[in-house]
Amino acid sequence: MPGFLQKLLPRDQSFFRMFVAQAENVQAGAQAMVDMLDNFSNPAAGASRVETYEHAGDVITHDIMKKLNQTFITPFDREDIHELASRIDDVIDLVDAAATRLVTYRVEKIRPGVLGLATTVRDATAQIVAAVRVLEEEDHILDHCIEINRLENVADRQCRQLIAELFEQEKDPVQIIKWKEIIETLEFATDKCEDVANVIETVTLKNA
Amino acid sequence: MPGFLQKLLPRDQSFFRMFVAQAENVQAGAQAMVDMLDNFSNPAAGASRVETYEHAGDVITHDIMKKLNQTFITPFDREDIHELASRIDDVIDLVDAAATRLVTYRVEKIRPGVLGLATTVRDATAQIVAAVRVLEEEDHILDHCIEINRLENVADRQCRQLIAELFEQEKDPVQIIKWKEIIETLEFATDKCEDVANVIETVTLKNA
Amino acid sequence: MPGFLQKLLPRDQSFFRMFVAQAENVQAGAQAMVDMLDNFSNPAAGASRVETYEHAGDVITHDIMKKLNQTFITPFDREDIHELASRIDDVIDLVDAAATRLVTYRVEKIRPGVLGLATTVRDATAQIVAAVRVLEEEDHILDHCIEINRLENVADRQCRQLIAELFEQEKDPVQIIKWKEIIETLEFATDKCEDVANVIETVTLKNA
Repeated sequence: MPGFLQKLLPRDQSFFRMFVAQAENVQAGAQAMVDMLDNFSNPAAGASRVETYEHAGDVITHDIMKKLNQTFITPFDREDIHELASRIDDVIDLVDAAATRLVTYRVEKIRPGVLGLATTVRDATAQIVAAVRVLEEEDHILDHCIEINRLENVADRQCRQLIAELFEQEKDPVQIIKWKEIIETLEFATDKCEDVANVIETVTLKNA
Repeated sequence: MPGFLQKLLPRDQSFFRMFVAQAENVQAGAQAMVDMLDNFSNPAAGASRVETYEHAGDVITHDIMKKLNQTFITPFDREDIHELASRIDDVIDLVDAAATRLVTYRVEKIRPGVLGLATTVRDATAQIVAAVRVLEEEDHILDHCIEINRLENVADRQCRQLIAELFEQEKDPVQIIKWKEIIETLEFATDKCEDVANVIETVTLKNA
Repeated sequence: MPGFLQKLLPRDQSFFRMFVAQAENVQAGAQAMVDMLDNFSNPAAGASRVETYEHAGDVITHDIMKKLNQTFITPFDREDIHELASRIDDVIDLVDAAATRLVTYRVEKIRPGVLGLATTVRDATAQIVAAVRVLEEEDHILDHCIEINRLENVADRQCRQLIAELFEQEKDPVQIIKWKEIIETLEFATDKCEDVANVIETVTLKNA
């Protein structure tokens, strides 16, 4: 359909509401991860709570894809809707992966600094919520993308510091293997937040 | 070229045949991996057989790209043809990477459960074959995508279980490093099957 | 805007110059990595030099994105400009990640063969420079993409050999963890060079 015709026809705005719901769910999951690390008395219960958000995320993501399949005129490019939903879903998948590993690896005590890294992940997901809330009007949306990029850099530095300390302080190679992966999985979640920011930037550029 | 004109002109259908050949080759390679694990008497010969499919896959992928370069009107978007061929090729690359590591790491005995994970990978590649066979008419194609997603979840659970057992049962950190990577490489192959399913979904959505 | 109108209007050619600057910076960073490994007397200074190129790369990448945001008619698809800039930036990020790890992990002596792998990375970045220099006229551009693919295969074989030797010769699991990651990070940099080649191929295919 030619662009001018597309602009004349009504577009279904509920995609925007669905992205907000998806992002808010990811933020809640990242907060559950922070809570789990902050009070590590019952890891299995904490990981199970994070998993709830991961499953809820799958349902929302599936709903977006289904709606995409049934919608003739979309508010922005079909491929970008698919991509944005997929990348937001990646974030909660990684938060869940980190939570699961804490249980699978039978971690007993949280290393110092890991809570700080998880807090950065949570902050980045809050920026994703803020960005998708203004996705429709694109009001100051790039500011949130810039903030996500900044938080990714913060997480990167936190990760490096934590890994350096791990190799200096921990002598058991098995503990090094376990913690290195948990720390890197959390940092990878902020990389995925950056991917979300990149899709949002692309959408904004196309509509500029 | 405007969409209506594109629909009037004949389109080269042999891309569909090439994707079927590419997918069947990946399935054969995944089956060779299952056979290798099922009878681990000669790992070098088994890995060499898997590598044959990896090389054959490179040739088919290259042929698809070359044909894409020489074809004016394609049956679906050029970029999606490029993407689909690349993602299917990723699957056999990862199966080959797992087979190669079994030799490079001088593995002597297969851990229980790894054959089951490789079988899930093979099943997912069978669904890719089924999906690309109906890519032209798009008949029930999304059912295969859903099944690939389900198998990816199965592989994910198998992988978690295998890694948990690895840390519980294996005391040698070097063995943990080796097996953790082999198991995760196989699981990653099903992630790539899911990427293939996502491209197929995107193509189907665009043509909806 | 219809394709024929786009062809009539002047297009801003400075994107091509910016990609050349970005690629040359990555090549200089990869050369700094080679120099660091070739004379490993002061790792901190070497890593700091590589980091300079990583930061310079971020500035150039940001400038390309900003220009993209302000430009109405682009020399090729907006999304591909975004993608190409992002993928070239990935290469220097990984070279920097390898250099950083040599310091973070307090590596004292470079394992034999690692310099050879870093040299392959540098050679692949030189091919990226050669490719983006002819991006405008697309003169023999696919030859450079083919060469990047060949170098990625070389790096892959070097990586496998280095990892096999690592497991055979090194008995300390912590050293295995550290070196395995440094070697794989360098190899991953050539994978990202291949991603750059793939974007260039896509752009070339679209304009064919």
